[in-house]
Amino acid sequence: MRLRNNPKANDILLSSKYVIGNEISFKNKDNEVHIEIGTGKGDFIIGMAQAFPNINFIGIEKYASVLVKAVEKANLLELDNLLFLNCDAIELKDYLDNASVSCLYLNFSDPWPKKRHEKRRLTYNSFLDLYDYFLKKNAIIKMKTDNKSLFEYSLVSFNNHAYKFEELSLDLHNSCYENISMSEYEKKFSSMQMPIYYVKISKKEDGINEI
Amino acid sequence: MRLRNNPKANDILLSSKYVIGNEISFKNKDNEVHIEIGTGKGDFIIGMAQAFPNINFIGIEKYASVLVKAVEKANLLELDNLLFLNCDAIELKDYLDNASVSCLYLNFSDPWPKKRHEKRRLTYNSFLDLYDYFLKKNAIIKMKTDNKSLFEYSLVSFNNHAYKFEELSLDLHNSCYENISMSEYEKKFSSMQMPIYYVKISKKEDGINEI
Repeated sequence: MRLRNNPKANDILLSSKYVIGNEISFKNKDNEVHIEIGTGKGDFIIGMAQAFPNINFIGIEKYASVLVKAVEKANLLELDNLLFLNCDAIELKDYLDNASVSCLYLNFSDPWPKKRHEKRRLTYNSFLDLYDYFLKKNAIIKMKTDNKSLFEYSLVSFNNHAYKFEELSLDLHNSCYENISMSEYEKKFSSMQMPIYYVKISKKEDGINEI
Repeated sequence: MRLRNNPKANDILLSSKYVIGNEISFKNKDNEVHIEIGTGKGDFIIGMAQAFPNINFIGIEKYASVLVKAVEKANLLELDNLLFLNCDAIELKDYLDNASVSCLYLNFSDPWPKKRHEKRRLTYNSFLDLYDYFLKKNAIIKMKTDNKSLFEYSLVSFNNHAYKFEELSLDLHNSCYENISMSEYEKKFSSMQMPIYYVKISKKEDGINEI
């Protein structure tokens, strides 16, 4: 997702208490940590932080001009369990410790439909290797998307990486699964009556990810 | 699928060279064996037998009144690589040797939508255990269905049984995957513009099916 450049974006990010600078520091350090990669304008992660005050959330977004929209929303709230990180997913090892995250959300990720861009998809194998680093044993990943091709690709990728499928729906909003918080894209596509694809997977206990 | 009872069905089955009596006997015994469970009126398996003369096919159907339609079609043809078996899937161990089948087709299987009927679904765990018995190492299963709930259920079931996903499409007829032969249901649903769900999975080399 791209927005027109906001020259004040970096200043707004730097001055917000919600934006991570050098290190991640939550008020309640012992709470579980859940992260969203590609947090966009923040509706999903802010909704989750409000719904689950005993979980610490980090919204990660690489575009400052997008993240600033999320930060401006958060600035209006008093939340001590939410932080944002302005970086590319491939830099996450610089911020997240090994086995430190209990849940990863991938919501409406860029599908990168061209085969030559496969490596950029957030469910490409090298990203799953990265997630292995910071996900705890038995951690879960929850993915939602409107994109059929990305969902097909991701199911194969997750399966081949030896993740265990826990829940799966080809039409989340007409399924038995709960759906606590919606991203901007989810609200938009749902209002257009488009099905939302959803899968919840868990990391194998032994952390071995070769099938 | 049920048809009105055909009192002559058993006589027609018994008198056809295509119907297996006590044992399976193909002309070319060394060819690979592919089977379809729930072969219905036979369009798929007959089409496959015509397209692949060097593979031996067995169409399995529990309802004699349905299978007779397939047998009547085959009786008009000269095929030495096709046989039909009138039995329930749970009886297959009586007919098929251990590690004897290279490919299993599940086409438009009964979805058994009620939770209390879960055990009857052909992708229920106990059926996957049965398939483990007669499938060779590296054998594949190809499933096609129009039923969203059965497909969701089956993907989870296959994944949890440690099958490796090879191909997956939420709209087979608009995908990159070839589709050689169509069952009666597939022709019907496809003509109604309904998407056909498809997955191709492989059995792990070591034959261990616990994730």
